[in-house]
Amino acid sequence: MQHDLVHGDHEMSRILVTGGGGFIGSHLAHYLHEKGNFVRVVDLKFNGHGLRPYCDEELLLDLRDPGNCLRATESMDQVYNLAANMGGIGFITEVGAEVMRDNFLINVNMLEAARQNRAKMRVVRYHNIYGPDGTYKGGREKSPAALCRKVAEATSPGSIAIWGDGKQTRSYCYIDDAIDGTIRLMESDFSEPMNIGSDRLVSIDEMADIIIRISRKSISKQYDPSGPQGVRGRNADIRLAKSVLGWEPKVSFEAGLKNTYGWIAAQCSEDRHEVEIMPRTQ
Amino acid sequence: MQHDLVHGDHEMSRILVTGGGGFIGSHLAHYLHEKGNFVRVVDLKFNGHGLRPYCDEELLLDLRDPGNCLRATESMDQVYNLAANMGGIGFITEVGAEVMRDNFLINVNMLEAARQNRAKMRVVRYHNIYGPDGTYKGGREKSPAALCRKVAEATSPGSIAIWGDGKQTRSYCYIDDAIDGTIRLMESDFSEPMNIGSDRLVSIDEMADIIIRISRKSISKQYDPSGPQGVRGRNADIRLAKSVLGWEPKVSFEAGLKNTYGWIAAQCSEDRHEVEIMPRTQ
Repeated sequence: MQHDLVHGDHEMSRILVTGGGGFIGSHLAHYLHEKGNFVRVVDLKFNGHGLRPYCDEELLLDLRDPGNCLRATESMDQVYNLAANMGGIGFITEVGAEVMRDNFLINVNMLEAARQNRAKMRVVRYHNIYGPDGTYKGGREKSPAALCRKVAEATSPGSIAIWGDGKQTRSYCYIDDAIDGTIRLMESDFSEPMNIGSDRLVSIDEMADIIIRISRKSISKQYDPSGPQGVRGRNADIRLAKSVLGWEPKVSFEAGLKNTYGWIAAQCSEDRHEVEIMPRTQ
Repeated sequence: MQHDLVHGDHEMSRILVTGGGGFIGSHLAHYLHEKGNFVRVVDLKFNGHGLRPYCDEELLLDLRDPGNCLRATESMDQVYNLAANMGGIGFITEVGAEVMRDNFLINVNMLEAARQNRAKMRVVRYHNIYGPDGTYKGGREKSPAALCRKVAEATSPGSIAIWGDGKQTRSYCYIDDAIDGTIRLMESDFSEPMNIGSDRLVSIDEMADIIIRISRKSISKQYDPSGPQGVRGRNADIRLAKSVLGWEPKVSFEAGLKNTYGWIAAQCSEDRHEVEIMPRTQ
């Protein structure tokens, strides 16, 4: 059974968000749940205990397994497949094939399961989505979160380490813009893969400068030429999204980083607090 | 346990050939078995009954399933993964995603299983391998086999149908050359993907002319512009194989097609015979 959809006036749909315990998935599930849909989230692990406040059903499943993909997509009208083995450049450089293997399996098995269960599923290529609630420590964090954490943890005056010469370039898209583009793509009739990202190219150096300004700290940058850097430059071509969906990012990089830094600085402060009180609780 | 290998003087190895009931797989298994190795073949189906004469062990397994891949690779020193959902341009144009899904799953699961069972596995990209014992009817046959069959079945004088305008180009590599290149790659220390194919570019028209000459029939070509054609042209870049393995194809296209045509003409003759005697056996 296929329902009409999620933006504005709509019937309620039964929607699966895989990777719903993760960064983009949790934001997406939150949005869809707020709109009044029935939201099932699936992930390999969830932080904390109890049902997420942004969903109606929660399943702990390894989606590399085809049987689990069939279970996850059962009786769903729409599927948003955000489950992935992911990490920043340090992590993916180190583990390589494991990331590709897992994501191959998740994507192929989820596509097949969605087809068998007649659920709707578009294909989006995200380009460096960032924002609050993302991974910010532990090794899998991506460059915006990693730099925010380094600045938040630095003394003032102090310094932070930057991998490479800082001149490598990327483009970054704020989470709210990414969710908006994703929903629009699902609502559209467009069935080909589409890029969702920003076409404002920035260097790692520029990003670090913006974050340092936001922090109001006095921080110098130390370059580590031996650090993993990935490709020298990459930008997102978003002409298709502009012409087909009338979509483009609205949140400036400065505004997005301000929100992200604020959230990560608060997390780091909590982490420090936990570490500090630990000895007393033992 | 890792043994030294299969060309020339060697210890016996335990070798898995997946897709061992198919075209390239059966030729490869035959070669390896003749060299004195223990050969296990795996396929989704086998023609005929009883153990293939070119192997020591035969398993009927669906390699889209990861558990079956582990079973197949168990206690093997080397793995040649020739299992694939495959077909000519007519078949793959029609079914599309099914071929990609199956081959994704086979390749990812076999790579993972070979890694877990510590078997050796190189990556080769074949470019249009042809020769005797390949599929020649039923819809999955590729262009050399399809044209050989059409010519073999045509009256003289007569005509054959050619998909498209005949000016689309490809390059074709004879099975014996492909096996030789594959074995050399496995014996080498080269761990990156490598093209195995021919760099002699021919049009479909030229190929048809060669086959017609071989048949000594008087046959005209009828072009069917509505037939599936695939990409307009594709050649194989085999510089890597030449420089790393000292390998290049030795069998001329004319000599290879002569062997292929001879075998397919004999098959078609047998098929006709079966059809003709059928009414009498009823």
